[in-house]
Amino acid sequence: MNVRLSNVLFRVDLTKPMDQQEVPGHNRWHPDIPAVVHVKPGDVFRIEMKDWTDGQIQNNDDPSDIRDVDLCRVHVLSGPIYVDGAEPGDLLVVDLLDMGPLPGAEWGFNGIFARENGGGFLVDYFPEALKSIWEFQGIYAVSRHVPGVRIPSLIHPGLIGVAPSAELLDRWNARERQLVAKDPNRVPVLANLPDPRSAVLGTLRGAEFDRVAKEAARTVPPRENGGNCDIKNLSKGSRIYFPVFVKGAKLSVGDLHFCQGDGEITFCGAIEMSGWIEISVDVIKGGMAKYGIVHNPVFEPGPMEPRFSEYLVFEGVSVDERTGEQLYLDAHVAYRRACLNAIEYLQRFGYTAEQAYMLLGVAPVEGRISGIVDVPNACCTLAIPTAIFDRDIRPKG
Amino acid sequence: MNVRLSNVLFRVDLTKPMDQQEVPGHNRWHPDIPAVVHVKPGDVFRIEMKDWTDGQIQNNDDPSDIRDVDLCRVHVLSGPIYVDGAEPGDLLVVDLLDMGPLPGAEWGFNGIFARENGGGFLVDYFPEALKSIWEFQGIYAVSRHVPGVRIPSLIHPGLIGVAPSAELLDRWNARERQLVAKDPNRVPVLANLPDPRSAVLGTLRGAEFDRVAKEAARTVPPRENGGNCDIKNLSKGSRIYFPVFVKGAKLSVGDLHFCQGDGEITFCGAIEMSGWIEISVDVIKGGMAKYGIVHNPVFEPGPMEPRFSEYLVFEGVSVDERTGEQLYLDAHVAYRRACLNAIEYLQRFGYTAEQAYMLLGVAPVEGRISGIVDVPNACCTLAIPTAIFDRDIRPKG
Amino acid sequence: MNVRLSNVLFRVDLTKPMDQQEVPGHNRWHPDIPAVVHVKPGDVFRIEMKDWTDGQIQNNDDPSDIRDVDLCRVHVLSGPIYVDGAEPGDLLVVDLLDMGPLPGAEWGFNGIFARENGGGFLVDYFPEALKSIWEFQGIYAVSRHVPGVRIPSLIHPGLIGVAPSAELLDRWNARERQLVAKDPNRVPVLANLPDPRSAVLGTLRGAEFDRVAKEAARTVPPRENGGNCDIKNLSKGSRIYFPVFVKGAKLSVGDLHFCQGDGEITFCGAIEMSGWIEISVDVIKGGMAKYGIVHNPVFEPGPMEPRFSEYLVFEGVSVDERTGEQLYLDAHVAYRRACLNAIEYLQRFGYTAEQAYMLLGVAPVEGRISGIVDVPNACCTLAIPTAIFDRDIRPKG
Amino acid sequence: MNVRLSNVLFRVDLTKPMDQQEVPGHNRWHPDIPAVVHVKPGDVFRIEMKDWTDGQIQNNDDPSDIRDVDLCRVHVLSGPIYVDGAEPGDLLVVDLLDMGPLPGAEWGFNGIFARENGGGFLVDYFPEALKSIWEFQGIYAVSRHVPGVRIPSLIHPGLIGVAPSAELLDRWNARERQLVAKDPNRVPVLANLPDPRSAVLGTLRGAEFDRVAKEAARTVPPRENGGNCDIKNLSKGSRIYFPVFVKGAKLSVGDLHFCQGDGEITFCGAIEMSGWIEISVDVIKGGMAKYGIVHNPVFEPGPMEPRFSEYLVFEGVSVDERTGEQLYLDAHVAYRRACLNAIEYLQRFGYTAEQAYMLLGVAPVEGRISGIVDVPNACCTLAIPTAIFDRDIRPKG
Repeated sequence: MNVRLSNVLFRVDLTKPMDQQEVPGHNRWHPDIPAVVHVKPGDVFRIEMKDWTDGQIQNNDDPSDIRDVDLCRVHVLSGPIYVDGAEPGDLLVVDLLDMGPLPGAEWGFNGIFARENGGGFLVDYFPEALKSIWEFQGIYAVSRHVPGVRIPSLIHPGLIGVAPSAELLDRWNARERQLVAKDPNRVPVLANLPDPRSAVLGTLRGAEFDRVAKEAARTVPPRENGGNCDIKNLSKGSRIYFPVFVKGAKLSVGDLHFCQGDGEITFCGAIEMSGWIEISVDVIKGGMAKYGIVHNPVFEPGPMEPRFSEYLVFEGVSVDERTGEQLYLDAHVAYRRACLNAIEYLQRFGYTAEQAYMLLGVAPVEGRISGIVDVPNACCTLAIPTAIFDRDIRPKG
Repeated sequence: MNVRLSNVLFRVDLTKPMDQQEVPGHNRWHPDIPAVVHVKPGDVFRIEMKDWTDGQIQNNDDPSDIRDVDLCRVHVLSGPIYVDGAEPGDLLVVDLLDMGPLPGAEWGFNGIFARENGGGFLVDYFPEALKSIWEFQGIYAVSRHVPGVRIPSLIHPGLIGVAPSAELLDRWNARERQLVAKDPNRVPVLANLPDPRSAVLGTLRGAEFDRVAKEAARTVPPRENGGNCDIKNLSKGSRIYFPVFVKGAKLSVGDLHFCQGDGEITFCGAIEMSGWIEISVDVIKGGMAKYGIVHNPVFEPGPMEPRFSEYLVFEGVSVDERTGEQLYLDAHVAYRRACLNAIEYLQRFGYTAEQAYMLLGVAPVEGRISGIVDVPNACCTLAIPTAIFDRDIRPKG
Repeated sequence: MNVRLSNVLFRVDLTKPMDQQEVPGHNRWHPDIPAVVHVKPGDVFRIEMKDWTDGQIQNNDDPSDIRDVDLCRVHVLSGPIYVDGAEPGDLLVVDLLDMGPLPGAEWGFNGIFARENGGGFLVDYFPEALKSIWEFQGIYAVSRHVPGVRIPSLIHPGLIGVAPSAELLDRWNARERQLVAKDPNRVPVLANLPDPRSAVLGTLRGAEFDRVAKEAARTVPPRENGGNCDIKNLSKGSRIYFPVFVKGAKLSVGDLHFCQGDGEITFCGAIEMSGWIEISVDVIKGGMAKYGIVHNPVFEPGPMEPRFSEYLVFEGVSVDERTGEQLYLDAHVAYRRACLNAIEYLQRFGYTAEQAYMLLGVAPVEGRISGIVDVPNACCTLAIPTAIFDRDIRPKG
Repeated sequence: MNVRLSNVLFRVDLTKPMDQQEVPGHNRWHPDIPAVVHVKPGDVFRIEMKDWTDGQIQNNDDPSDIRDVDLCRVHVLSGPIYVDGAEPGDLLVVDLLDMGPLPGAEWGFNGIFARENGGGFLVDYFPEALKSIWEFQGIYAVSRHVPGVRIPSLIHPGLIGVAPSAELLDRWNARERQLVAKDPNRVPVLANLPDPRSAVLGTLRGAEFDRVAKEAARTVPPRENGGNCDIKNLSKGSRIYFPVFVKGAKLSVGDLHFCQGDGEITFCGAIEMSGWIEISVDVIKGGMAKYGIVHNPVFEPGPMEPRFSEYLVFEGVSVDERTGEQLYLDAHVAYRRACLNAIEYLQRFGYTAEQAYMLLGVAPVEGRISGIVDVPNACCTLAIPTAIFDRDIRPKG
């Protein structure tokens, strides 16, 4: 009778680390991590997942867990899921049918990482670790650390992707090594290279574990396989088309977010949570060539995003705010300035700069590249839905 | 009885260049360009404007006018409008009440600028000049050059801004000069410096004209005063809060767009048009300090944007697509790759690459900074509303 | 050069009554009213129209014109428009491409008709004539008679339809005569029967005029040909499929509304205005049988309706509020009670009952049949978008 | 640790009828049904509920359970919930924070009731019992009985209300008795009067049970206390303001719907389901008089309704389709005709009339009172979102 529960193909016990789960997941990308779940096109099934840090963060007011987080441990993923019939050159169609929290774990966290351990988009302004806890009240999240806002859920997996081929993995490792080599001692690092410490590789053991742990790519960046895209609009009802690089596609998922702002600017960056996801899969044979979807996934957002009609929008242009230096069409800097402008503004309504920063990380703000050709300034905008506040935050005469 | 027409405070004759209008506008930023229109807080009035090139582009199938456009002439603006009571430190509140085409000029153009004369976001892929003409059918635009799409209007001024103070103008010129000095012979240029050629400065004449023409900033980039932000969401009903830098604020407006995609990627980049705008103004005394709106304008979008529910979304990450080089959180490159992925895809549906490029320039596509902290890859997304096509463009099994 | 103006196929002079226009329109339905405009499938053209009363209402504060309005004069329509190739059994496809006010006439009116002359939905509560004037400020309308609200435009023709066949006209007249016969002296009347007084029949003159004037149906009700449907969602970009009953279809249009609430409850009921509409037409041969569209038109709303996200919703059930009598699934009464509940509520925010009544007539309120099977009570709801008010009108603790 | 589960204040066992639950609910309205749950303003809690028929309908292809359903058993409700501090004259504020199915019961049903046992809106056309089963796939429901559609969830309680006072209950019984007396033998009945058969009255037993069972109102109609409003927009995140008639308010809830069309036209009418709801409550002291909310509840819809942009809309006017009789502003008939027009149309796309009827019952269609003053015809519209179909259902040339 219990149809849905019998379809839970990957379970987690929140009291245990990922490598001690009955069926362990993984926290690296490698084609040789064995699949632990098998499904057929058309199957509907449920996957449970831990939060991205593997449970390192507690629901309390002490940010020391954020400061001391073991980032070698991230992101713990559920999978790989082997899809029958999927082969390199196909498109894997993944429908994200629904998502939610696990019973008894209806809360999430947002953190500002310290400069020495991860940093964030505005690390130069916010170098110290900080944490906010968000309690779920149905579709809303509220926080004792950021009062006066109620965030409607735009739940999504921050990380979902397929396994790379060996060739693709080599390419990732090569190009990221070259980047790090430009400034190997930079804090924060330019990229996280393969690192066997804290690696979790599913059922792999022994020499095979050691080999793969040395080669496997870290999960931090989004790449050709999808991965840690942190796209807030991959919410309920969305459909993703993944290029397939290995037999069975080997889909993995994790890093569930109750909500997130575009950019995920605090890095620990959304309302991070454990939970479950309901998925169905299909395969478009030969779809990569047929549709030219070869470099990155393509997706359709779902119909259940929270509806807003009013926004307050902050602009930023690509002039360095500290030096006054004129940069050339630098959207990164333009978006930073839009964020800083918003943080400046929100402080007029009683928020600390840190609260405002975390708020931009967790609220469903829209971050847009509005103009990218008007030399020399890129123009980026940050749109905050005004309905999340319990007061009117618009300027008044 | 003719209430509205008596409120047209700036008129244009489309058969004459801007400097030969009865009341000429301007195409440079400078505090000393005299105001030609005076209004009071609360006033509702109409401003007519020419297209941004001052009428250089014709409704025909020959792109040579795009290739040979005089870019020293851009952007011709209507104004400056002096607002009584506005002083430095205030916020100027501008309501964009309505906009539309001028009778008999219900068409617009999109152009790919040649590398030698402006270029665009994808100039390395599209170095030759090209043009598409868009005819307006009420709220829709259709093109004989890009068949199979019907674009609903998201009309907005690409350029709206207030005059800089002398001090601010000096800062602009200094920082842009420093940038150009890094690669003075680059094609396209890194920035357009002050240039008296083709300058139009309102009613200024003689020595004063010469002085101002040498100092005045070009209108190409968005800056602290707003300016050429090319924000597609500044459409009907939106409200902008401008920092005020000079007495009277000296608002100017131009570069009307029937519609535009985020990024305005072809540079001549929206559906460019002449037309009119209806505006009301107000002043928030001391608003800059009160709200911390000092670096850039803030705005609220209006309620009349076209409603879409289904999108096809392309992702891009910050790896150079030609060299494979890994870049560090480079949103510019990530957005370029998202655009290239979309262009690749649209060619499967019968479009040439050039048509797809122009389509992304003119359709109301959403360009988002989805992830900007997942080192080393920025992740940008480009969302195309599927309803603009006359067929289903989603992947099918 | 003046492309659009040359496509104005029907012009009006607002200073003259409809029968003295250069090309007169009509205010009755009859297959023998001659077409005055001819178009082909694919044509795009513009039609001007007077307000539905033929200019009887003035922009002033005196409601005597509402009280004394000649309702035999309504609705003055522009047309008929003959569409080449349209024949009985076809579907006429009409795209409403754009609409707007005529220059110098940027205002509209709402009226409560007196019981003795028309009445309205709540005539028992509001038996006296009253008027509110609405000035257009771009996409918004504001009124000195109903302060504190700003209504975004949802412009639409209250009346658009095709000519009936002689057989269909006979059926209308027969059934409406039978209804009136049930209570011939009722005030207001149960239906308006053919009445030659104040009839305008295009170019018809003499005996033919007299014959048609006696037979022609009044324009007040919506019927199989579309007609006075007063559907607020027939706004910019919508597409209507009309059954065709006579050769050439003979499309007519009028009764332009700047905005209206569902139900058009004050009868003179929207923000009534003169203006223009841009239309394109097409024909689906044999479409009536092919799609089973035979009794009434079918339509697709356009993409440009104002966006709201927050509503306050009032419920009503089918119990007579004066007698306490339980009615059986009576949606009319249920909607009346929802309206009365809203009017009661709005008075708590400083509006008079009359202002609240007119506000429900002109604002884009949603009137829904929520439950129609839960014997014995129909449940109707009235949803008011809260963003039209300049203050927060929600209940507070 | 299991925060949420400890907040389940009312549990159901789906294998047992409501009167055999550990804590039984009720299926009648009466002030003397004892509260079984107590909460304080500000509390967040979860309530489980059975489907409205108390589990009489099975997930199979045999409609005999629909035909033979015991309608004396409906609606089984969870509650009453006593809210501390709520007194007559107050407003009870109820936030519907989230809803969902119970594990293992992720399906629902729609039924056409037979004329002899309930009937429905179109009983004259569909007098025989029929059933469709809808399986939930995350936010979507699909049916083997109505192929080709996928319905996104607009989950809501069809029935939520507070207890009537004794005086109000008397009024209900008196007015409904008067209605039934007009045609006591009608099939279906005009109203369901108090009936002790199959009554469930919470913990009441013995003589008190017998007294209350004889007096208690049936739950079928919506009334002043809210009740069976079947408002599809009372979905996730909505807030209801109930008038309070008895001490403690005594809130009850049931009749969960996965989705429903406006009107709930098949009577068994939505996708009927068991499930849970998460609620928070508050009280506005003296709110009934302060806001004039005395006759019916008022509500604000939530932000999580599925987003659609394209609709096909069917119109209907108040002329009886069988006799041709002209009715006077009869919105009931006008909506019936709109529904019949839609059913006629959908048959062109391969649906049986019965499938189309059930589809209109379960899909999130909008039923609107578009015009209610244009004598003698009411005009109602039925808008179907086209995105629920797996093909394009618009008319084509």
